[in-house]
Order: sequence, then C-alpha cells, then structure tokens
Amino acid sequence: MTDSTEPNLHGLPKNRLETLVDGVFAIAMTILVLELRAPAALGPGGLAQGLVDVGTRFATFVISFIVLGVYWFAHHQIFHFVLRVNRTLVWLNILFLLGIALVPFAASVMGAYTGDPIALSLYGAVLGLLAALGYLIWWYLTGDRGLIEPGLDPEMVHKVRVWLAIGPVITPIAIAISFVSTTLALLIYLVLPVVFIFFNPVSRYLERLRETEP
Amino acid sequence: MTDSTEPNLHGLPKNRLETLVDGVFAIAMTILVLELRAPAALGPGGLAQGLVDVGTRFATFVISFIVLGVYWFAHHQIFHFVLRVNRTLVWLNILFLLGIALVPFAASVMGAYTGDPIALSLYGAVLGLLAALGYLIWWYLTGDRGLIEPGLDPEMVHKVRVWLAIGPVITPIAIAISFVSTTLALLIYLVLPVVFIFFNPVSRYLERLRETEP
Amino acid sequence: MTDSTEPNLHGLPKNRLETLVDGVFAIAMTILVLELRAPAALGPGGLAQGLVDVGTRFATFVISFIVLGVYWFAHHQIFHFVLRVNRTLVWLNILFLLGIALVPFAASVMGAYTGDPIALSLYGAVLGLLAALGYLIWWYLTGDRGLIEPGLDPEMVHKVRVWLAIGPVITPIAIAISFVSTTLALLIYLVLPVVFIFFNPVSRYLERLRETEP
Amino acid sequence: MTDSTEPNLHGLPKNRLETLVDGVFAIAMTILVLELRAPAALGPGGLAQGLVDVGTRFATFVISFIVLGVYWFAHHQIFHFVLRVNRTLVWLNILFLLGIALVPFAASVMGAYTGDPIALSLYGAVLGLLAALGYLIWWYLTGDRGLIEPGLDPEMVHKVRVWLAIGPVITPIAIAISFVSTTLALLIYLVLPVVFIFFNPVSRYLERLRETEP
Repeated sequence: MTDSTEPNLHGLPKNRLETLVDGVFAIAMTILVLELRAPAALGPGGLAQGLVDVGTRFATFVISFIVLGVYWFAHHQIFHFVLRVNRTLVWLNILFLLGIALVPFAASVMGAYTGDPIALSLYGAVLGLLAALGYLIWWYLTGDRGLIEPGLDPEMVHKVRVWLAIGPVITPIAIAISFVSTTLALLIYLVLPVVFIFFNPVSRYLERLRETEP
Repeated sequence: MTDSTEPNLHGLPKNRLETLVDGVFAIAMTILVLELRAPAALGPGGLAQGLVDVGTRFATFVISFIVLGVYWFAHHQIFHFVLRVNRTLVWLNILFLLGIALVPFAASVMGAYTGDPIALSLYGAVLGLLAALGYLIWWYLTGDRGLIEPGLDPEMVHKVRVWLAIGPVITPIAIAISFVSTTLALLIYLVLPVVFIFFNPVSRYLERLRETEP
Repeated sequence: MTDSTEPNLHGLPKNRLETLVDGVFAIAMTILVLELRAPAALGPGGLAQGLVDVGTRFATFVISFIVLGVYWFAHHQIFHFVLRVNRTLVWLNILFLLGIALVPFAASVMGAYTGDPIALSLYGAVLGLLAALGYLIWWYLTGDRGLIEPGLDPEMVHKVRVWLAIGPVITPIAIAISFVSTTLALLIYLVLPVVFIFFNPVSRYLERLRETEP
Repeated sequence: MTDSTEPNLHGLPKNRLETLVDGVFAIAMTILVLELRAPAALGPGGLAQGLVDVGTRFATFVISFIVLGVYWFAHHQIFHFVLRVNRTLVWLNILFLLGIALVPFAASVMGAYTGDPIALSLYGAVLGLLAALGYLIWWYLTGDRGLIEPGLDPEMVHKVRVWLAIGPVITPIAIAISFVSTTLALLIYLVLPVVFIFFNPVSRYLERLRETEP
C-alpha cells in the first residue's frame, strides 16, 4: 500500500530487505532441484526405471517447492503493509532466511530417508521454526512501533495471527506422529500448505477492500 | 505500461512476484552450466578431446538457455500489461517457476542420454508443462478480473493466445515422435524456440502502438 | 533517505549496485547450506548419529549466515545515505563482494577442519578483509566527493568509523590467538557479530532522528 | 539518466532486463567459488599445503571475478542511457548472459589445466564472445532506434565504441599467443581488465557533465 521506493524519512526503506528475501527464496527454490540428478549408471530397467527411482526425491522437491511458495507469498502479503524496517525486524527476517536456506538441506535428508522418523522430524523442525518466526514477525510488526500501515482492520490482524499460529501448533504434533507413522506425518506436511493457501485472511481482506472501494 | 512500484490501492503490486520470477530464471539459467565440468582426467586426446566429449552437454546447455530466455521474455511481455496480482495468479506463477526449476534437471538427463527417447520425453514434458501454464496464465489474466490493463486490443489478446498454444500442442507430438526418431524430436525442440522468438505478437503490437502514437 | 530510482542527473544511480550486492549476499547465504548434505551411508547410530556428525558444519553454517547478515545490514545502512555511485565506489564494492563470495569457501574449510589453526586463520582473514573494505568504503564515502547525503551528523560519521574499525583491529588478534587456542579464536568469531549487532550507531542515529522529528 | 520504473508508454521498460542481468552476474560471480573446495584429505604438509595447492584455482577465481565485475560495470554504465528495450536488444542481452554463464565453466577448466593452451583458448574464446556482444549491443543501441537517451555526446559514443572494441581485437591475439606461451596469454587476461577499468570513457563523460552542471 506504500511505494517501496518512496523515501521514508529517518527510516530504513523495506525494498532492499525484500530484494534479499526474494533472492534467498529464489535460490532455495531452484537449488532444491540439485537433488534430482540424472542417474549416473543405468540398471536393467534403463532410464525409465532410473527416473522412477528418483520418485521420492521428486515428491520431496514438489512439496518443498510448494512450502517455500507458501512462505514467500505469506511474506509478500505481510510486507505489503510494512512502512519501514528497523534493526529488530531485519534480524527477525535474517533468522527467517536462515530457516529458508535450511529447507533444501532438510528436503535432501527427507528425500534420501523418507521412511525414517528422524528425517521427517528434521523436516518438521525446519517448518516449525519458520512458522514460529513468521508468527513472531507479525506479532512484532503489529505492535505499536510505527512499522506498519496505520488503520489496519484489527479483526484481520487477529485472523492473520491465528492463521500464522497453525504452523507452530501443528508441526510439533506432526513430529511426534512421525515416530508412530511416517506416512501420517508426511500427509500432514502435504495438507498443511494446502490449508495455508486456501484459508488466507490477507487475500480475503484485500478482496473485500476492493469490493467496497468507490 | 504501469509503474511497477506505484501503489495499487487494495491490491498486491506485481513487482515482488517479478523479482522472484527473475531470480528463479537467473539461477536456472546459470546453474545449467554446472553440467559442464572440466574433464576430471585427460584421455589420449588431451583436453581438446575432453572438451569435444562434453559436446552434447554443451548443445543441451545452449538449447536450454535459449528456451529459458524465450519463457522469460514471454513472461516479461505478458506481465508488462499486469496491473496487480492476486492469490490465483501468484500460485499459477509459482507452479510455472516449479517448471522452470525443473529445466536444469531435464537438461542434465538429456545431456547425459541424448539418444534415449525417455530423456527426450522428460525434456518435452517439462517444456509442455511450462507452455500449458503460460497459456493458462494468459487466459486467467485476460478474463474479466481487473488484473490487466483495460483497453488491450482484443485481436492482440487472441493472437497471444494462439502463440502460447503452439507449445502445448507441439510438445506432445514431439514426445510421441521421440520414440520413432530422437533426432527429429530434438530438431523440434530446436525449432520451437526460434518460431516463438520470430512470431511474437506482443513485440509487433508494441511496435505498432509506437508508430501510431503522436 | 533518497529514492533509489530517482534520476540523479549526471551520476550513476545506486540501485543496480544494490541489486548486485543483494544478489551476491542472497546466493552466498544460501549456498552455505550446500555444505550440509544428507549423510551418504548410515553407520551404527543410524540417521540421528549421522546428523550429530554434521554438528560442527551446522555451527559453521549458523555463524557464517549471521556474519553475512551483519555485513549485509551494515551495507544496507551505509548505502541508505548514498546519493550516487562512481567508478571507485563500484570497484570497492566489487572487491567487497569478492570477499563475500569467499565466505562459503572459508566456512567449508572451517567446517571440515575446526580444530586446525590454519582453517581458523583463513576464516579470520576473509572476515578481516571484509571488515577492512567496509571501513575503506565508509572512509571513501564520507570524504568530500558528493556521494553521500549532505548534512550527516559528524559525530555519527565518526562513530560508524570506530564501529567499522572493530573488525580490522580484532581479526588479526583472533588469527594470532588461533595458533594458541582454536576454541578462543572461535569464540571471538562468535562474539564479534553479536557486538556488531548490538553496538550499531546507525540504528541509534535513525531512531534519534525519528524521535526529534515533528 | 531515466527513472527505470517510470512508465515508458508503448515500450518495454528496462528494469526487468536489468534485474535478470544483475541476477545472472551475481550467481556467476558467486558460483566461481564452488571451484575452491576444502581439500578432501590432508597430505604431509597438512591444511596449509592443501590450501597452497588450490593456488592456481584461487588466482583463476580472482581474475574471473574481476572480469565479471568489469563486464557488469560496463553493462550498468551503458544501460544507464537506455530508455526502453525491444526484442532484438533483449535477445542480444540473453546471448550476452549465455556468455556470462559460461565464465565459471571456462574458469574451472583454466583452474584445472592452467598450463594447457586449449584451456587458455577456451577462456579467451568466452571473453572474446562477451566482448563482441558488448560491442554489438552498443552499436545496436546507438543506432537510430529510439532506444537510448537522445543528445548523447557523439564523441563519447565513438570513444565507448573504441573502448568496447579492445576485447574483440585483443582476445584472438591472446588465443594465438597461448599456443606459444601460456604465461604471456595469462598475462594478457590479467592486464585486459585493468586497462578496461582505468580507460573508462563513460566514467569520464559523467564526471565532466557533473563539473559543468550549474
């Protein structure tokens, strides 16, 4: 709602933080594919069989790409309302990016050891860290610090808080479940981003504003 | 035609999605080169022979780079007319980026197994997915959703639709052909981007507008 | 304090240099994670033990990520006051980026040989080079060259100079110490960024300006 | 001289092409470092000897980083005067980026086989391709196509053309020399960027304009 290049007097503009964030997301999303390599040697089934064998790695690639997309879009939507950044907000974001950079690592472990609860727990721990930082960033932003658009609908602010709390609540449960059933835990990692995409209070808020505007 | 940093009230601006897209393209284009490695040990012909041996990988690199260039430029041209983004448009783009991230993988398989129809089919499937998503994005944008410049020439909108339909129509044919003749299929992958570059309705439209403007 | 896209007549704008810098930082931060790979084969302790074994690499990843975050934020803050760039400033920045690109290499050596003073010295040398270049850039900018906001508080300019001198002074000491005690040297590399984060004269300056503004 | 985000009616703005170019440069510069890996096993001299052994790779890294810096800065300076882009200009730039993406490959071959004239020729061929494309881009831009700032000093236009012709003229000579003396060819690759940096007609032109402005 504010021009990202407009000079915010006596405050750091948000555009460079956004560029850094977009860059880390773009790289994390693209290096996920480095786990998918052409099979070095072909067994009896030939290349077709070799590609089938990278199946679980491919599924992990798709899930991780969607997860990164979910976090990127949530970041984009939340930062849409940000006016300026300060030191604390920058460092919360750098920690968030540290978690984003860990996704390809956690994905590569999960792609290699899908049936192992430790691999699923590592993956869940990274997702949970990201979700917790997302919640913290929104909580920090919506405090009385002059960092965000004034006049945001308090109901929307609350709904986003609930939305962002889903991750930190669900991922510890998924980690616990992975020691009982890896399939069920994996299913939760699959369903979680879908829920996140469809129950999106910011999209609804923006659509409502557009409908009521003259 | 619209300033990408201008505040679109009550709508998400397109600039961050463009930054993400440009980032993924830049990385996918550059990591293609990771397939071209210095030969680890030199055989009888020395380094010259070693470099000749990476010939098919080099050809795959060039084709894939041009293909990514084609898709990048088409995205740039189409998004030139976009006013704001919404959730559906963002997710169509993230799926598109998933396809872009797969190009280096498909290229690495094709570079290693050029004569294998399975490798050529995989490459064709990625190109076809991208082409289908490109078509879908244009179809979604030009619907009555307030996402695109009003007053676009309907003839141009239709021509772009036909242009973007070439890929989804030709790639399944190329995949089928690859089981008959891998050379012919490869040739189609070579010719397709060239056709795409020279029969570009957006470039023509913009040139015509420039000529008629006062 | 100035719009990065505003035309600075007869001067090169800073925005493309910032984009390059943000890109190199984003990539350096993200490829740090390439050192953390899924264990190729599992020993007696299984995956849990395999992940514990990547412990020192993980610690190096976290420290290096924070260090890069510190340098990125310092660059962001300093460039906030820059009006335009010239050849010398661009080349000082390219040398700075050369140092940034070396961080993943130094981190990979330190992650593999944590107890070796040579590894710690290499890491310290890269940090020292970056700190020296950071000092040089600030010294060059604040000279009478018309590159920076006029009317900056001279006290702040001096404080930033002292702040940026910490690195070039401490890192040679840390390198010397690493030959006596690698643990102590590692501790210095841990504490240095923390000091840098909390004793940040630019953040304080901007906060003070905000408080006194009408 | 023009705001990169200002709407150029009926023309494609240059900002996305610049973002793609900056992205490819940032990645190419940073992945150069992937050639510098921690020695896998330590011989008799320990880590110090292992690092000395990566010496020629390190020199190649530094030269290649500087070369990429030279090309990036030349691109930045030239595009400073660009008003809008068209299809031909975009494709010349994509071919230029193809050459940029090849630099890490050519550097890795040269780092591994420094004494081999084939390795030096490959490196020279990539530099020559880039230089030729740079020349071509400037020639295309300064033609009567409405792509560049009107009223550029014709003397400067000519001087830049001579400046950009150095590369395409010198690199074939360096390639020929590499078969006589690899040291001499390497020296040319070292000196060329230095000449390029110090004899920079655009920097001089901009400085002169600043001095004469009111």
